Amino acid sequence: MRVSRRYRFCASHRLRAAALPESDNARIYGKCSNPHGHGHDYLLEVSAEGPVDCFTGRVLNLASLDVLVRRAVLETFDHRNLNLEIPEFSEAPPTSENLARLIWRRLVEDWGQVFPAGPRLARIRLEETRRNSFEIMEEE
Amino acid sequence: MRVSRRYRFCASHRLRAAALPESDNARIYGKCSNPHGHGHDYLLEVSAEGPVDCFTGRVLNLASLDVLVRRAVLETFDHRNLNLEIPEFSEAPPTSENLARLIWRRLVEDWGQVFPAGPRLARIRLEETRRNSFEIMEEE
Amino acid sequence: MRVSRRYRFCASHRLRAAALPESDNARIYGKCSNPHGHGHDYLLEVSAEGPVDCFTGRVLNLASLDVLVRRAVLETFDHRNLNLEIPEFSEAPPTSENLARLIWRRLVEDWGQVFPAGPRLARIRLEETRRNSFEIMEEE
Amino acid sequence: MRVSRRYRFCASHRLRAAALPESDNARIYGKCSNPHGHGHDYLLEVSAEGPVDCFTGRVLNLASLDVLVRRAVLETFDHRNLNLEIPEFSEAPPTSENLARLIWRRLVEDWGQVFPAGPRLARIRLEETRRNSFEIMEEE
Amino acid sequence: MRVSRRYRFCASHRLRAAALPESDNARIYGKCSNPHGHGHDYLLEVSAEGPVDCFTGRVLNLASLDVLVRRAVLETFDHRNLNLEIPEFSEAPPTSENLARLIWRRLVEDWGQVFPAGPRLARIRLEETRRNSFEIMEEE
Amino acid sequence: MRVSRRYRFCASHRLRAAALPESDNARIYGKCSNPHGHGHDYLLEVSAEGPVDCFTGRVLNLASLDVLVRRAVLETFDHRNLNLEIPEFSEAPPTSENLARLIWRRLVEDWGQVFPAGPRLARIRLEETRRNSFEIMEEE
Repeated sequence: MRVSRRYRFCASHRLRAAALPESDNARIYGKCSNPHGHGHDYLLEVSAEGPVDCFTGRVLNLASLDVLVRRAVLETFDHRNLNLEIPEFSEAPPTSENLARLIWRRLVEDWGQVFPAGPRLARIRLEETRRNSFEIMEEE
Repeated sequence: MRVSRRYRFCASHRLRAAALPESDNARIYGKCSNPHGHGHDYLLEVSAEGPVDCFTGRVLNLASLDVLVRRAVLETFDHRNLNLEIPEFSEAPPTSENLARLIWRRLVEDWGQVFPAGPRLARIRLEETRRNSFEIMEEE
Repeated sequence: MRVSRRYRFCASHRLRAAALPESDNARIYGKCSNPHGHGHDYLLEVSAEGPVDCFTGRVLNLASLDVLVRRAVLETFDHRNLNLEIPEFSEAPPTSENLARLIWRRLVEDWGQVFPAGPRLARIRLEETRRNSFEIMEEE
Repeated sequence: MRVSRRYRFCASHRLRAAALPESDNARIYGKCSNPHGHGHDYLLEVSAEGPVDCFTGRVLNLASLDVLVRRAVLETFDHRNLNLEIPEFSEAPPTSENLARLIWRRLVEDWGQVFPAGPRLARIRLEETRRNSFEIMEEE
Repeated sequence: MRVSRRYRFCASHRLRAAALPESDNARIYGKCSNPHGHGHDYLLEVSAEGPVDCFTGRVLNLASLDVLVRRAVLETFDHRNLNLEIPEFSEAPPTSENLARLIWRRLVEDWGQVFPAGPRLARIRLEETRRNSFEIMEEE
Repeated sequence: MRVSRRYRFCASHRLRAAALPESDNARIYGKCSNPHGHGHDYLLEVSAEGPVDCFTGRVLNLASLDVLVRRAVLETFDHRNLNLEIPEFSEAPPTSENLARLIWRRLVEDWGQVFPAGPRLARIRLEETRRNSFEIMEEE
């Protein structure tokens, strides 16, 4: 069974690949490369997969998931400027793809400590706006 | 092709594992173990998978799916107290995980009679609130 | 300017007018009068009206509104059985109309203490399901 | 990584299988076979899958996807009568299943020209109404 | 207290003012004047205003409202071609403004018979798409 | 009749009242006063009120409204840093209240030129997140 839970956070960013000339940045990112930045309300859906515990009738303790997501994701990214306050984005552009990969890595790092006996982290979906979303699924 | 259709029902429940002491129940379920119960509006999405019929251009008859879901799910659970009115939850706690499994079993039981020549029941998704959802996918 | 903020809570209830015979209850409330109860996820939108403070650029402090709504509404109604745990509904049926009126009275009672210098409580909207909503507006 | 983007278009149609007698059409499609037609606002979600480019931090250029979807789908179907203006539906009934298959074929045809070096078209989801949706996933 | 309830129906139409030359129609309505028509999923929200009955705790009987809306609105407009099947639109263009006015008139006509002792019809809101909505409020 | 149409834009900001000491800023705005800023996806709903034209069946030309809103609002605010790129916010804090007032003033300024013969600008609603919204209504 797969259990999914949603979280929200907001952040600002400016899309810019440091390794590319400005003309390329303008062409690739359009108005998202405005030097003063802009922002989004991100929706993060975290999905875990595992068996249902026969005593508790639960796949995982949602309160523990909340603690994990708050510590690994929300406290780092909520109400932040991704370019200036997240070291991983001092060079790499804070696209939603890169942000999703960073969130995935952070969740993977802390997952085993919070859920040593399962379930697995199966998927994350990061919704940048109501139109665009980005998913990472576990390797199978 | 996968076809999905949404249904809604509301029910009340109290989360409590009969086999565990009260202190464990309070710890595991928090305010969801309030003895007087509380309730939710559940959204159920049922997904069927199969080929498109070349004459009708349909994967399945949605009116037949409605009859099946109404009989197997809505008539049993809508406007009910899950603990007091659903025998399966006299012992097991009516978590959304257990509720999803029960709905899956009931749909599987009746599916072959309503759709003897396909399509397959591929997935159900039970949304407890806008934040939490629970999915069961067919074994592959 | 009018500022609105949304809150969610879930509760169970059974619709039943104590002063009416059972046959009338069944006719008026239909499956909502099931003796074992059912439940809903309520959405409450609270709207305040007042001038924008020229220093802070705000109509009201949203953190104060959160404290007020949590104390006057959420702590009382969230994860509760309205019939058994709310004294006002020991006799009167816990319809969404009556629930909205009770929420309104509780907010009005505490409002002046939290916002002595304005803004006014202008409106509440209680959404029982995505289909039905109930609004109370201040007398003008 | 999978990237998904949403588009909207509206169209009218009448469900009718030309190869079947009228009585069968009425039985299969119900009020959807009304000879004068009716309409829907369709939501189309297109999902692409591929690696994240290490310079741009993107899986694909969304502006290119917009051009592709506009040319292959929106210009053809938006504000159209599917039965009268889409040759593929002069015989086959314009069910959402058939419409999804036609959209899939059109996207596949143009995909390689717009994205010669990847990513792959992984999935489309066509939402006919908020209740019904239709998905096609790439063969694996 | 104001009580609101939502209904859905779908219909097709073509925007065209019979009294105007084709060039004006094209200029005013753009692609909405395509002669073969297109369609929408309309959402109709009906709001009634009145006191809460002290016995039943209700402003109105929602089942009676359902009967009224089904008879006065849904049976007439759902799954229809507005231009060809609604006499009022043989001349006047079936814009959402005109459709809202027609729905309002029909509700007003039947309202007194279904709710002779109140509540009043206070407002309707017709949502053509998620972007555009049209409201009529009672004269005060 | 009131006609409403929705627009979206995203921007970043930092809440800070220049006239107040930093300790007050931290207390009033909390994490919203983070010096590096954060961002939101704003939804703007613009409502116009007027009679329905008997020839066109419309209250206003939506294409003209789009031009007006794009020029007066979207081009100025979309993908911008409100503090650094909007002169009005070099001193005043870019709260949603102040942003709504600025949008209202800009719409009022251009309205008469685009709609000299009506309808009136009746209301705007600015949704900062799904939880918080801010409305300005015309003086009556």
